[in-house]
Amino acid sequence: MTLHPSVAAVRLPVRRTLSGLEAREGRRETVAVACSGGADSLALASATVFEGHKVGLRVVGVTVDHGLQAGSAEQADRVVAQLAAMGVDETLTARVDVDAASGMGPEAAAREARYAVLEQVAEHLEARLVLLGHTLDDQAETVLLGLTRGSGGRSLQGMRPSFGVFARPLLGVRRADTVTACLVEGLEAWADPHNADPGYTRVRVRDRVLPVLEAELGPGIAEALARTADQLREDTALLDDLTDHALARARRDGGLDVETLRLEPTSIRHRALHRAALDAGSPPSELTRDHVLAVDELLVGWRGQKWIDLPGPLRALRRDGLLLIEAP
Amino acid sequence: MTLHPSVAAVRLPVRRTLSGLEAREGRRETVAVACSGGADSLALASATVFEGHKVGLRVVGVTVDHGLQAGSAEQADRVVAQLAAMGVDETLTARVDVDAASGMGPEAAAREARYAVLEQVAEHLEARLVLLGHTLDDQAETVLLGLTRGSGGRSLQGMRPSFGVFARPLLGVRRADTVTACLVEGLEAWADPHNADPGYTRVRVRDRVLPVLEAELGPGIAEALARTADQLREDTALLDDLTDHALARARRDGGLDVETLRLEPTSIRHRALHRAALDAGSPPSELTRDHVLAVDELLVGWRGQKWIDLPGPLRALRRDGLLLIEAP
Repeated sequence: MTLHPSVAAVRLPVRRTLSGLEAREGRRETVAVACSGGADSLALASATVFEGHKVGLRVVGVTVDHGLQAGSAEQADRVVAQLAAMGVDETLTARVDVDAASGMGPEAAAREARYAVLEQVAEHLEARLVLLGHTLDDQAETVLLGLTRGSGGRSLQGMRPSFGVFARPLLGVRRADTVTACLVEGLEAWADPHNADPGYTRVRVRDRVLPVLEAELGPGIAEALARTADQLREDTALLDDLTDHALARARRDGGLDVETLRLEPTSIRHRALHRAALDAGSPPSELTRDHVLAVDELLVGWRGQKWIDLPGPLRALRRDGLLLIEAP
Repeated sequence: MTLHPSVAAVRLPVRRTLSGLEAREGRRETVAVACSGGADSLALASATVFEGHKVGLRVVGVTVDHGLQAGSAEQADRVVAQLAAMGVDETLTARVDVDAASGMGPEAAAREARYAVLEQVAEHLEARLVLLGHTLDDQAETVLLGLTRGSGGRSLQGMRPSFGVFARPLLGVRRADTVTACLVEGLEAWADPHNADPGYTRVRVRDRVLPVLEAELGPGIAEALARTADQLREDTALLDDLTDHALARARRDGGLDVETLRLEPTSIRHRALHRAALDAGSPPSELTRDHVLAVDELLVGWRGQKWIDLPGPLRALRRDGLLLIEAP
């Protein structure tokens, strides 16, 4: 019997992600897979059980109960049963309380809480990896959401394929393949009601924006967005690095040396000024490119200006060859 | 009488662009303004006459007759009359023949021909600047078109505010303001039938994609896209520069020194390999990120591979510590 192409499409990157973990002698390594019961994470869990067991790994399913909606405990129980039927070695249900007073939006707060609890679970299990089910479609949506922020490459770099103990093997796999893989494998995916609520920008991007882009600009647009994210992630890593070095060279006497900073390329100077304003306490959501350009005029367009007002409130000013960002 | 805000929105950046040109003593400088008769270039021409004459500049209108459509000569004559009525000092009609055998698409070929003839006109007039009427909406459309290519920051950097003798003062002005400015000033704008032909991707972006983005993601999306382009242009300038240096360091004996190139950051290595393949004659439209990543494996994942096939056809291979890209 031939393997269905959608099942193969999900399994292949999972196999690659797990490769190397089987190597340690005398010790059976553990990988965890986060599963909400949606098609993407269900297909991921199934592929992880298959590929993980093939190379002697212990596969633990983890489902997170946010307690955010009625029936979330029942849904968690349902996922536990599905994971057990798939043949995972163990399933954990992690309950999280979202900190409503964190200052983040409810989506961001839920995400932070989820990653924190998954990290704890990984530590408890001594898991080498926690796999997450984000797909190429999620990546494309993230890039489009970043476009609306208009803050350049940083906001377009999408999700990282791995960070800390986490890995996202399906970032190159279309969501449709995870849906098909579930159908082929007889896994009944759960449709999260949040995913159909047009009150969420991400849902509108998924249901209204991406389909229009695909219809008008061609079917390769999701892949093009994901490819763009990959390249911008590489660029941002380097530019951030150069910015670190520029700031380290310029720092003295509680400020930034004007002459040193002025010699940096425009791209690095702007990044350094943005970072310096954030470090001084300017709120990221209010600090705009126009603020950064105005502060940059203190460096490259100096004609004895007084100061630049920044969100915080803060003031950027020049004194004794130093650029200072301080409370007014 | 107060100045209408849309007229002011068009005049202000034109004034900034022209500032400095009035300075030379004893010589009346010339600026040219390219005008198709569309709302954007008509509003630009009117603002240039007003601001240019205020500071003693000679303002010459230039209209380009592509001869691509029936009635193009009549349309050119109409623009000449409109420009004369505005009070330009002179108007030139430049006729261009588009080279259908150039290998470029018809839009790109027409654009190239237009810039070439405008450059000749500028030289003939000894003009200090040729102003072009591209607006913030054009910039946003260019970024969205770049997204479909999926080739990272390079394809998202949009149009430059100036290059050579050309300047685009309206890149921060909404198209709607140019339309309103024409209405207020009694200028009858021409609707280019090309601009309504959904056979052109750019027309679909304008009429179908951007409106959906604005409706679903918020009205600031065009500005956000333009801002992103500005930042990515800065980044690309630096990254291109670093790539030039990396290639200069690595070049020896007709190839690229593997050990030297291997030490470059990922972003620069990938750019350098892309450039090296183009320099060797690989067609830009066929050379993909996957090709670049495969060639990069010869540097960072070396295990004695034979060669990598590239469009051209070309082969990338390692020999005696050199990376070579050559005909098979």
